[in-house]
Amino acid sequence: MLGGQILHGGDYNPDQWLDCPEVLEEDVRLMKEANVNCVSLGIFAWAALEPEEGRYEFDWLEKIIDRLGEEGIQVVLATPSGAMPHWLTQKYPETMQVQADGKRNLPGKRHNFCYTSPVMREKIYQIDSALSERFGRKENVILWHLSNELGGNFADSSCHCELCQEAFRNWLKEKYGTLDNLNRAYWSTFWSHTYTDWSQLHSPAPHGETTMTALTLDWKRFVTYQMSDFVRTETAAVRTHSDLPVTTNFMYFFKGLDYGKMRDDLDIISWDNYPFWHKTKDEVPVAVRAAANHNIMRSLKKQPFLLMESTPSAVSWREFNPIKRPGMHMLSSMQAIAHGSDSVQYFQWRKGRGAYEKFHGAVVDHKNGSNTRTFRQVTELGERLRNISGLVDGTVNRPKAAMIFDWENWWALEDASGPRLDISYIDCILDHYQAFWEAGIDTDFLNMDDSLEGYAVVAAPLNYMYKPGYAEKVRRFVEGGGIYVTTYFSGIVDDTDLCFTGHHPLADVLGLEQEEIDAPSGDFPNAFRYGEKEYPAGSLRELIHASEETKVHSVYEEDYVKGEPVVTEHRYGKGAAWYIAAEPDMEFLRSFYGDRLKEAGVQNALGTDLPYGVTVAERMGSDGRSLVFVMNFRNEAVTVRGTGKWADAESEKTYDGSLMLGAFECLVLRK
Amino acid sequence: MLGGQILHGGDYNPDQWLDCPEVLEEDVRLMKEANVNCVSLGIFAWAALEPEEGRYEFDWLEKIIDRLGEEGIQVVLATPSGAMPHWLTQKYPETMQVQADGKRNLPGKRHNFCYTSPVMREKIYQIDSALSERFGRKENVILWHLSNELGGNFADSSCHCELCQEAFRNWLKEKYGTLDNLNRAYWSTFWSHTYTDWSQLHSPAPHGETTMTALTLDWKRFVTYQMSDFVRTETAAVRTHSDLPVTTNFMYFFKGLDYGKMRDDLDIISWDNYPFWHKTKDEVPVAVRAAANHNIMRSLKKQPFLLMESTPSAVSWREFNPIKRPGMHMLSSMQAIAHGSDSVQYFQWRKGRGAYEKFHGAVVDHKNGSNTRTFRQVTELGERLRNISGLVDGTVNRPKAAMIFDWENWWALEDASGPRLDISYIDCILDHYQAFWEAGIDTDFLNMDDSLEGYAVVAAPLNYMYKPGYAEKVRRFVEGGGIYVTTYFSGIVDDTDLCFTGHHPLADVLGLEQEEIDAPSGDFPNAFRYGEKEYPAGSLRELIHASEETKVHSVYEEDYVKGEPVVTEHRYGKGAAWYIAAEPDMEFLRSFYGDRLKEAGVQNALGTDLPYGVTVAERMGSDGRSLVFVMNFRNEAVTVRGTGKWADAESEKTYDGSLMLGAFECLVLRK
Amino acid sequence: MLGGQILHGGDYNPDQWLDCPEVLEEDVRLMKEANVNCVSLGIFAWAALEPEEGRYEFDWLEKIIDRLGEEGIQVVLATPSGAMPHWLTQKYPETMQVQADGKRNLPGKRHNFCYTSPVMREKIYQIDSALSERFGRKENVILWHLSNELGGNFADSSCHCELCQEAFRNWLKEKYGTLDNLNRAYWSTFWSHTYTDWSQLHSPAPHGETTMTALTLDWKRFVTYQMSDFVRTETAAVRTHSDLPVTTNFMYFFKGLDYGKMRDDLDIISWDNYPFWHKTKDEVPVAVRAAANHNIMRSLKKQPFLLMESTPSAVSWREFNPIKRPGMHMLSSMQAIAHGSDSVQYFQWRKGRGAYEKFHGAVVDHKNGSNTRTFRQVTELGERLRNISGLVDGTVNRPKAAMIFDWENWWALEDASGPRLDISYIDCILDHYQAFWEAGIDTDFLNMDDSLEGYAVVAAPLNYMYKPGYAEKVRRFVEGGGIYVTTYFSGIVDDTDLCFTGHHPLADVLGLEQEEIDAPSGDFPNAFRYGEKEYPAGSLRELIHASEETKVHSVYEEDYVKGEPVVTEHRYGKGAAWYIAAEPDMEFLRSFYGDRLKEAGVQNALGTDLPYGVTVAERMGSDGRSLVFVMNFRNEAVTVRGTGKWADAESEKTYDGSLMLGAFECLVLRK
Repeated sequence: MLGGQILHGGDYNPDQWLDCPEVLEEDVRLMKEANVNCVSLGIFAWAALEPEEGRYEFDWLEKIIDRLGEEGIQVVLATPSGAMPHWLTQKYPETMQVQADGKRNLPGKRHNFCYTSPVMREKIYQIDSALSERFGRKENVILWHLSNELGGNFADSSCHCELCQEAFRNWLKEKYGTLDNLNRAYWSTFWSHTYTDWSQLHSPAPHGETTMTALTLDWKRFVTYQMSDFVRTETAAVRTHSDLPVTTNFMYFFKGLDYGKMRDDLDIISWDNYPFWHKTKDEVPVAVRAAANHNIMRSLKKQPFLLMESTPSAVSWREFNPIKRPGMHMLSSMQAIAHGSDSVQYFQWRKGRGAYEKFHGAVVDHKNGSNTRTFRQVTELGERLRNISGLVDGTVNRPKAAMIFDWENWWALEDASGPRLDISYIDCILDHYQAFWEAGIDTDFLNMDDSLEGYAVVAAPLNYMYKPGYAEKVRRFVEGGGIYVTTYFSGIVDDTDLCFTGHHPLADVLGLEQEEIDAPSGDFPNAFRYGEKEYPAGSLRELIHASEETKVHSVYEEDYVKGEPVVTEHRYGKGAAWYIAAEPDMEFLRSFYGDRLKEAGVQNALGTDLPYGVTVAERMGSDGRSLVFVMNFRNEAVTVRGTGKWADAESEKTYDGSLMLGAFECLVLRK
Repeated sequence: MLGGQILHGGDYNPDQWLDCPEVLEEDVRLMKEANVNCVSLGIFAWAALEPEEGRYEFDWLEKIIDRLGEEGIQVVLATPSGAMPHWLTQKYPETMQVQADGKRNLPGKRHNFCYTSPVMREKIYQIDSALSERFGRKENVILWHLSNELGGNFADSSCHCELCQEAFRNWLKEKYGTLDNLNRAYWSTFWSHTYTDWSQLHSPAPHGETTMTALTLDWKRFVTYQMSDFVRTETAAVRTHSDLPVTTNFMYFFKGLDYGKMRDDLDIISWDNYPFWHKTKDEVPVAVRAAANHNIMRSLKKQPFLLMESTPSAVSWREFNPIKRPGMHMLSSMQAIAHGSDSVQYFQWRKGRGAYEKFHGAVVDHKNGSNTRTFRQVTELGERLRNISGLVDGTVNRPKAAMIFDWENWWALEDASGPRLDISYIDCILDHYQAFWEAGIDTDFLNMDDSLEGYAVVAAPLNYMYKPGYAEKVRRFVEGGGIYVTTYFSGIVDDTDLCFTGHHPLADVLGLEQEEIDAPSGDFPNAFRYGEKEYPAGSLRELIHASEETKVHSVYEEDYVKGEPVVTEHRYGKGAAWYIAAEPDMEFLRSFYGDRLKEAGVQNALGTDLPYGVTVAERMGSDGRSLVFVMNFRNEAVTVRGTGKWADAESEKTYDGSLMLGAFECLVLRK
Repeated sequence: MLGGQILHGGDYNPDQWLDCPEVLEEDVRLMKEANVNCVSLGIFAWAALEPEEGRYEFDWLEKIIDRLGEEGIQVVLATPSGAMPHWLTQKYPETMQVQADGKRNLPGKRHNFCYTSPVMREKIYQIDSALSERFGRKENVILWHLSNELGGNFADSSCHCELCQEAFRNWLKEKYGTLDNLNRAYWSTFWSHTYTDWSQLHSPAPHGETTMTALTLDWKRFVTYQMSDFVRTETAAVRTHSDLPVTTNFMYFFKGLDYGKMRDDLDIISWDNYPFWHKTKDEVPVAVRAAANHNIMRSLKKQPFLLMESTPSAVSWREFNPIKRPGMHMLSSMQAIAHGSDSVQYFQWRKGRGAYEKFHGAVVDHKNGSNTRTFRQVTELGERLRNISGLVDGTVNRPKAAMIFDWENWWALEDASGPRLDISYIDCILDHYQAFWEAGIDTDFLNMDDSLEGYAVVAAPLNYMYKPGYAEKVRRFVEGGGIYVTTYFSGIVDDTDLCFTGHHPLADVLGLEQEEIDAPSGDFPNAFRYGEKEYPAGSLRELIHASEETKVHSVYEEDYVKGEPVVTEHRYGKGAAWYIAAEPDMEFLRSFYGDRLKEAGVQNALGTDLPYGVTVAERMGSDGRSLVFVMNFRNEAVTVRGTGKWADAESEKTYDGSLMLGAFECLVLRK
């Protein structure tokens, strides 16, 4: 566990207050009061660290690090590439991004840098290695925080300048070798877009190409590749005088970069979590969304991760920004720990006085010092985290269930023209995941590149793209006894978005062939029966043909597809492959996955059904036994029955047969 | 009849499959199986036909044409201007369009060419004439298909480059002679926009002029003129070695080009029909829309036309894309024949594997070969078309009713600021037309330039603009006994969008003057009585003053205009001119036009009232007798009563007194 | 009173009709018939006045002025900068605006000029002084009308060209002296945006800086400054040979320019009023909106103003454009007089035949001459205005109530990210003002720079920004016995948008501190009781802490803030400061302000409660006694009871105890 304890603290920007020494001194005092043990320094501080080209001013930073050290507060040290100083953009305008429309940005906002620009890379390398030299071996510095929310640039996360175009072309050459290969992969005969010279290749643009889906896909891959390359430049720089681990903070369902490709360049995964609590009275969809993101982060390295940012009260950038109701800050933070975080960090320690984020929630507000609801809630959480630090182990549990969640599938699926334009991969993923969450079953989220070994159940909804080798992997998984669930509009294209012809790549495993997919209007409902109930067939409905050995569990009840299969099961090897041909609703998914989990013998830690709003998650405890986090996301007390005997891990309390949870309460239990 | 039979087939892109000879061979086999007798080749094939500048590769095409010929399949041969190869855009960037904002496009998408560019014209002339030389006298090549869906460029259909600006200025000089004339026509004293030099004229632009409505109108006219000029270049090229007829495929209610102006440059009208079937349970509005478009195409030359594209199953570019329910493919295709088409062609024969349209419906899907619902439906239709080929004549009937539908009126009306900004010409046209369609009365759609001779009833709703000579034509029409119907906001401006002063140009014929037009909020309803019923006065309400001899049939029932006329009739010569001063609803239009048709003695072919969803259309039969197409657009069986005796033209069946039609059924009858 | 009478007339564009002398002669005849006594000439007439550079053609204008003079019609003479002639933009493209995205406009539309450009200033100076020389001492010319609706340019009202950037930088240097000062004020350490050279400063741009709120604010201030500077150039030019007063016509809640800063450069305030009458059945919100705007204009100089434009029937640019119902033209015009206007002028006298505004309402339409409803209504109003001219005095009453309405507060508040993004300052201002309007209490609208002396009640809702000195002014006001009302999210930032720390600047006066502000979803209602009733707490809810001496009148009834204060009163000196911590509804505001006005002894002129839809406004009468305008904005008759004795100022009628008003009627009374 990094720093030997669960980290509690957050982004700290003393560079905004250098002319107010009394504020800085108050900060340290308040941090102690709030049970803060770790802060992130230097994010967006380039202008303060290098006020003019080549002149580094690090003394102020050292003074603060030392002062924090005296008080036992650890430091996550950032590299400053998240925002560019004016001297840099003025002297080297080529370091600024060019947008898809071909226009070079002016200075401003953040993440405005071209990740290809040699000048940008040189300047960041120089300051990063200077930071490494000065601070890389400081006792209370524990982690490098590379840049900040990479790709979060108020635009499409990418730079379209000529340097990037050239790098893209080289990346394509490397990938395809010949234009013939590329043309075939791009199906470029369509609309006569055959490339006859590498120099004709250009990033997708509103005034240029947007209809060659494989090009769009490759451009997104290149952006991840090039950003990773930039990250490696920063890593090399901080490694010049330091062997501290590196991380960079990821974002919430961020489509701009394939985090699956970036994980290997990082020692620790960290991310920023801003759920929209209190959007409606029903907090479950928000809790599920946050849980899914936590699991994605944990699954990237199958290690604990760091919650690098969260708000202690409200954010400021949504249409409306509710303040967390009492209990929600504790619950939301404990949810992170439950799903594998080793920290609860905030953006931000103290609200700045000016500019864009001055109303974003912070531990310390503009007024009232420690005398605020928010400060007290933070303090209380800090105490609980300190107590819990000794209970959790530095590894994670390995769940028996997994979902396929793959960025490249996301990109390709949602760029497709047809059968609907409003298909949301994330919404579909979350619907399926919610069935697991409600059942209290922990679930990994896997790239198609990941191994399926060790899982009992794997769900792959809307698995439109099949990467090379993926079908074989699934085949082995089912053969070996796994239960595999997939849906309509899966297995459609290969990794350059070319449609499969002949047969579905898993036709033998699924025991079926797809014929056509209907995207009807709401005026044309359909339904199917599963078990005792009838469920609606949603807005996408495939017509499939099951093989003879395939068991058809449900058929369409209406319309021209009446009697055709919807839910099928095909035994293959020791396992079974299930197919859901029509878009299902939440109620069906609950029932369906309930059955699959029962078949697979996968149970939640409490061994009982959970009331709506309650879930459980397990973490390896430091004593080798599981710690069970029981969380109530309803704003009222609930009772969980049939739970057996449990001991409260944080108190002397014991429970027998049932658990009573208060509104937004989280219990941590041990057998 | 082109090719001696009703054509059945569609866009065929073997250039996408040249490296899969087995696919090409399978195509021919499947075409035969599907009763396909004609395919369109070469659309978007420039890159395959001229892989580098000046090097033509036509052998593959000849092989395919010959192979098709062996099997008795005819070929519509396209010129390849619909999409540009990369060598062309790279070497001659000036061939690409400049958008209204002044930015030159990058290569990509389709229809990205500047129709003024001499280089583009030269390059297309060269390849077109080479195609003409090689294929212009091939036995199974029957028609030139110039370009594809001209103007369908993902933008505003026009190019704003400097070459186009110069051509525009020359067109204006030609039209106006002097700047004085132009300034007067443009009312350019408004906002001091008096032109003092021709070089000051520029196309409308978001960052320039958008408020000089006559300039906007002239720019649209110029775009049609210049595109036609480009079409003539292509025609000249294909005519170098061929005397085959030429067509270009028009689009569904396409506002970008005035097809009325382009008809004379084409030998045959063809168009692409993509109705949004199954958008709601009520298919009638969609059927009416498709019928109107068919009639527009038929009316352009008053000849049979070709349905050049349609989908055999679903499209892929709408928000959601329903698959045609059983029967709808047959019905929708028969509707085209009924309204004057000599073909049912598809986009596309076979789904490509990649890029933007890979999910667009096709006869042959990615999988399952001929073993699909779609393929079977296509096959069945093909057989019916073959049987029907001998029954229809190569001319069209001349209906007794007509509607004025004029592109220039459309442009000017919807560009006007006031009285509402959301006026839809098409919606209004369709409402009025639906009354005819429901009554089973065929209707021509006329430009204001067309003759009104031979019609008994002419409807001209929202006839905002009066072109020179139009008022005189209407006057003669009514004088001669015609029934003329027009509405609020008609007769407002001349052809340069200058308001008429003094009197309405048809004040004498209509027997009224307009005073003011109100566009009230929904909070201020009004109504009028016609016959026995009260009808709502919609969102536009004119205050008019009827002359003494004018018969006022309806007056406003409410508000400050209570008692003022809404529906008026003025006898003029042997005819009558009707005016509807307020926006009416569908129910009123049914009743109103029912009365007018009765007065004019215009009856449908069955001589009886038709149930909702059923219509009839007549075509000249090859035996000189009318063929009557009875179509049921409801997804359930209906009975039409009071029909007299009929023989089924396709079978031995006879009917006496009533017709029973199945869901989505079309019968073809003869007396 | 300018011109010795209430002006009645409007924008007159004879330059559009110079080739129709019969129209010009008819105009004069119709003006006399319509009781028009004043027209505005020369607006947008640059091309007619200077058809080529340096060649002035003023004869036509003189002829018209003289002809009008013969008929006793006065002239407001415009300078022609509202729209630019083509010779100017063609020869000097730098005179055209550059948009925020960096693109230079093409010629077109209106207000396309760069207000910094020396060429533009020189050209306008030349023609303005030539106009001054020729017409500045004409007997019937009474006022200079500088340009037209400054900033109304179809974009963001500002020019971003390099000349403007440079002027902006100079303005900033002048304001801040040093970059250190600027950096501190801008909190530029946030996201490393520290400026190290003045040349790095640039206007906000979509592709540049949008997140530095103080920069955005300063840019808006600069735009007003620079536009004012342009206005002063025009003033200097017309003053070369004339000592007539100058005005420029302002607009309806126009955010682009700070009219508070511009008032000192003008002799007379004038503005253009286009309320959206008949948007719904309830006309009150529209009447309130118009009243507020009238009051803003009157408050700018605390003098009568001119209604420079209004429509006699409908406008043409809204989504739908209802025609004024009978009575509304009279009422809407009398409302202007009641609130301090000395004129009712129209856009436009006669509808032009072409271009963008040809369907905008006018006194004279395209047809029917004086034989229209509109013309008769105008004529009738003209007569009434003539009669009323002698009754009103050239000064205005001084109301006892005021509201703070400040452009800089508007800009800063709505640019803030958080707590909601959809906060509307105007909507909030109007809600509070409606309470005064319904009570018949006249209200000044003050900038924070204005004096609070003489008022009994001052309301300052959403007073987010506190300019320097403002807190002191309020403190003195309350100390001296005033009642001050303010709300949630007030007193947050200083004039460079830096948040106050420590205490609320008026903590001592208000007797409270703010802790946090919640922007909850609609799913989380809350409420508070005031008096006998419960009212909803809206979408913004502050948690505040009242001091011991503060009287808490209302508390939250629900949720985690249950029992915390909502409405508080703090006695301070001889007065009281009230705070409303949560967004209130209209019903609460009515009740709340009713109580405050009672406490302050402020009563309406009739001394009685007014029925919904009826309000009163007072003007100083020429006999030293108040004239009371009683207006009924309901489209039905109402009776006001308890009114005492009144004499009708326009007739012999007297009233005793009650007033009966017809639909949309306005009475003018004297004691």
